[in-house]
Amino acid sequence: MSTWEQDINDINTALERFLPAATTFPTEIHRAVRYSVFAGGKRLRPLLTLATADIFAVGHQEAMPTACAIEMIHTYSLIHDDLPALDNDDYRRGRPSNHKVFGEAMAILAGDALLTQAFATLATESSFPAAVVVALQQELSRAAGMAGMIGGQVVDIISEGKPVNADILDYIHQHKTGALFTCCIRSGAIMGAASVADVAALTQFAEKIGLAFQIVDDILDITGDDTTLGKKTGSDVSKQKMTYPALYGLEKAQQKADLLLTEAFAALQPFGEAATNLTQLAQTLVKRNS
Amino acid sequence: MSTWEQDINDINTALERFLPAATTFPTEIHRAVRYSVFAGGKRLRPLLTLATADIFAVGHQEAMPTACAIEMIHTYSLIHDDLPALDNDDYRRGRPSNHKVFGEAMAILAGDALLTQAFATLATESSFPAAVVVALQQELSRAAGMAGMIGGQVVDIISEGKPVNADILDYIHQHKTGALFTCCIRSGAIMGAASVADVAALTQFAEKIGLAFQIVDDILDITGDDTTLGKKTGSDVSKQKMTYPALYGLEKAQQKADLLLTEAFAALQPFGEAATNLTQLAQTLVKRNS
Repeated sequence: MSTWEQDINDINTALERFLPAATTFPTEIHRAVRYSVFAGGKRLRPLLTLATADIFAVGHQEAMPTACAIEMIHTYSLIHDDLPALDNDDYRRGRPSNHKVFGEAMAILAGDALLTQAFATLATESSFPAAVVVALQQELSRAAGMAGMIGGQVVDIISEGKPVNADILDYIHQHKTGALFTCCIRSGAIMGAASVADVAALTQFAEKIGLAFQIVDDILDITGDDTTLGKKTGSDVSKQKMTYPALYGLEKAQQKADLLLTEAFAALQPFGEAATNLTQLAQTLVKRNS
Repeated sequence: MSTWEQDINDINTALERFLPAATTFPTEIHRAVRYSVFAGGKRLRPLLTLATADIFAVGHQEAMPTACAIEMIHTYSLIHDDLPALDNDDYRRGRPSNHKVFGEAMAILAGDALLTQAFATLATESSFPAAVVVALQQELSRAAGMAGMIGGQVVDIISEGKPVNADILDYIHQHKTGALFTCCIRSGAIMGAASVADVAALTQFAEKIGLAFQIVDDILDITGDDTTLGKKTGSDVSKQKMTYPALYGLEKAQQKADLLLTEAFAALQPFGEAATNLTQLAQTLVKRNS
């Protein structure tokens, strides 16, 4: 993703600014938070937010609090998902997961802190008019909440070890990963004061690209190797998690991802060249091998 | 607290409205959330918010999203605090704690959900101008975050079993409980478009009453009985938690609470009769025996 290196650097610089220094008292929580935020994440979500903002010529610095708030939500969800009571993953991005380093108590609190800091960052760092900030808060809280990401995680947990069912699988993907993906893109549109029609087209794009991304992720869990991915592959299979490859087979899952990608790009047509960055980023995402 | 029965009923009705129905898919998370939200809590924080709003003649229905958002933050913190990795409390308000009923995974997610729903409620249910909503979001996210409640909880955890120290004890109380108390009162003032001087006076009041409340809570952990309190007394002592009674002795701790109360009421003087409800509520809080 070398094309995005400058953006990724800018995102990391902004995250650095939006989080208390590691030397702030009590240092334990700040070290735990920063350990996971600066763990070499690919910053897909903030990149999507910035690339959507590009369509509407919103400056990256102006869009950064929103982009970083979404990354904080994503990171909190990873910390909590890895906990022994949830996915019980000892590794994340090739390093010991948060609770393995800082203990379960601090990992729970670090997740809580990042979730809270996401809303703090939106509320205190945004330079948009208050009505836009409130719209962004509505968008993010819905995407992250019980009707979004948390709902997806709940269904994922209660479905483990049960027979695969396409409706449930769709629900999990659309909520656990899809909701926050869609939030990135809709937030970019909200910052750009997009028309209702533009928001609808971008939502279409977001939902399709989000699902495609999740399918690719499931495929990589089977075909990828641990070193490239920085996490243990085969974990979905060993946990009897429902996945698209498990339900449809590898080939059909890949076809489904490709079809979704075609449909997603069709939804971007009305934006013409303004959507070049978003198109390129989406292509990188779904073609990635790590 | 029979004086406040009507307000408590109104708060419960509003919380009912601001949370998805228990029958919403996936029901597991909604049942877990509602179990703790409707567990017979005393609603001290929303009552404080409403009583402060009274000073500025802000209608209770208008203030309700803010009052309930704070109660959601409080409830999430109780659910996470009770987890085995944190305080490991099996009981809360006389009933099994959330994770004892719904399991650790669902309790973690129920806490996450309530924290998120607090910000969703502020962003989507408030009838105040957007600039006021953003100010309320700033206030709540700061109070709940690493520089507030979470910071206090972190220091409480890392201090367990270590020698008592007055500075650390003050930090814990001012952050773990005090920050959200202060948030209730400052939020009432923000909704009332209070002057800088009025916000300063109310912040003084809030900080003193919050500390007094916490000292009374510590005293009750020693002198109260399990049935009245609905939780196990003596747990602070058995966990070697730092408390004011442990540091200063019971009598001096009570004197400190009384002094703080006097100072707190002095800070309310400028508001005259407009602060009657807030004064009465504060008196009830600190004189309570349960």
